[in-house]
Amino acid sequence: MKYLNQQEAINVDQELFNNYKFSVDQLMELAGLSTACAIHDAYNEATKVLVYCGPGNNGGDGLVCARHLKLFGYELELFYPKRTSKALYENLLHQCKSMNILILNQNPSVSELNCYDLIVDALFGFSYKPPTRPEFQEILKNLREIETPICSIDIPSGWDVEDGPPEDGIRPDFLISLTAPKLCAKFFKGRHHYLGGRFVPPALQNKYDLNLPAYPGHSNFVKLN
Amino acid sequence: MKYLNQQEAINVDQELFNNYKFSVDQLMELAGLSTACAIHDAYNEATKVLVYCGPGNNGGDGLVCARHLKLFGYELELFYPKRTSKALYENLLHQCKSMNILILNQNPSVSELNCYDLIVDALFGFSYKPPTRPEFQEILKNLREIETPICSIDIPSGWDVEDGPPEDGIRPDFLISLTAPKLCAKFFKGRHHYLGGRFVPPALQNKYDLNLPAYPGHSNFVKLN
Repeated sequence: MKYLNQQEAINVDQELFNNYKFSVDQLMELAGLSTACAIHDAYNEATKVLVYCGPGNNGGDGLVCARHLKLFGYELELFYPKRTSKALYENLLHQCKSMNILILNQNPSVSELNCYDLIVDALFGFSYKPPTRPEFQEILKNLREIETPICSIDIPSGWDVEDGPPEDGIRPDFLISLTAPKLCAKFFKGRHHYLGGRFVPPALQNKYDLNLPAYPGHSNFVKLN
Repeated sequence: MKYLNQQEAINVDQELFNNYKFSVDQLMELAGLSTACAIHDAYNEATKVLVYCGPGNNGGDGLVCARHLKLFGYELELFYPKRTSKALYENLLHQCKSMNILILNQNPSVSELNCYDLIVDALFGFSYKPPTRPEFQEILKNLREIETPICSIDIPSGWDVEDGPPEDGIRPDFLISLTAPKLCAKFFKGRHHYLGGRFVPPALQNKYDLNLPAYPGHSNFVKLN
C-alpha cells in the first residue's frame, strides 16, 4: 500500500474535485461517515465523545462524524474554536446543533477532558504545515496530557504530514487514513489504524499506484493493523 | 412504524433542506449509498446490474447507488433517458462515466433486460403523480414483463405513492424506503423491504411520529420484513 507525501495527497484531492467533479459536500459526508463507522467498530462501548474541529476540511469531516456518531447513540459534544463563514460549514454546524450536540464555549481543561470516553481530533488535515498557530497550541498541549483515547482523522494534529510526530506530539490510539495513508501514518503506534473514504475511482487509484487493500463487502472502512 | 402520505413525505423532505440545512448533495449521497449497501445485503451474488434513472431526485439517488455498487464490485450499466441540466446531476453522471459505468443509448428490450441479474428502478420517487409520461410508459411496460428481479428506490415506479400499484404495475422484488416508508409500501409483496436514509434528526422523527425501527450498530439500512 502506498503512503502519500503531502503533495500527492493534495493532488489526489484536487483531482477528485476537478476531474471527477465530486462536491465537497459529497466527499465530506462520506469521509465523516466512514470515520464514525470505524470509531463505532473500535469503541462501541464508549458513550461520551468530544469532537475537536479545526478551521478547514478536516474540521468539516469532524462535524459530519459527530452527527453520525450522535445517530449511532453516542453522547456528543463539540469544540470548534475557529470557524469559517462558508455556507457548508455553517450548515454542518447547524445540523449538529439541531441534533442536540452540545457546543462548548471554552477549551476544556485536562481534568475535564479525562471525563470523556473518547476525543476525536479533527483539527488539522493533510494540508497542515508547522508551526501550529498559537490559538491551537494550548489545545494540543492538553491533548498530549490526557488519558482519554484520541481518534485522529487522517493526520494526528500537529504531526508533520510526512515526517510524523514532533517530540511533544499527541499519541492517538486510533487513526483513520482517508482515501490513502499519508507518510506520517508510518509513525502511528496506536491500537487502531483504519482506512476510510471508499470513493476513490479505480483509475485514480491506478494513477497514483495506491494499491489499496480490499474493503470487505459494502463496508466503508477497512482495518489496517 | 408510520407510513407517510405524499404530502407528509414532501414536508419531511422540505424540512430536511430548509430547517436542518442539509444539501441535496449530502442526502442524495447518503440515500444512494444506503440503497447500494442494502442491495449488496440482499443480492451479493448478483454481478450484472442495470440502473434506470429518472429525471428527478430519485434518478439522482440511482446515479449515486450505481457508483457505489460499482465500487462494491458489480458490473454496472445505466439508462438515463431524460436528464436534467442541473450541475449536481451532470456531475453525478460524470462520476459514473469516469468509473467506467456503461451508459446505454437505447431502452433495452425485454430479452436484453433478462440478461441482467438485477434491475434498479430509480425512475420516480415520492413526488410522482400519475399518469406516467409517454416516454416512460414503454420502460414500465418492459419492466412488468421481465424475469429479472427489480429493486425499487423509495417508490416502485408507476405506483401511486399512497394507493399502490395500478393493475398493470411493476412488481419489485426489493424496495428500500428512504427516511420512512410511504403508504404504497403496504402493497409491496417482494422478498426484501429495507429502510435506509439514516439521517433523520430525532426531533423531526418525533414531529412526524415516524417511530422508526432501530438501525443495527453503524449500519445505514435495516431490513423490515
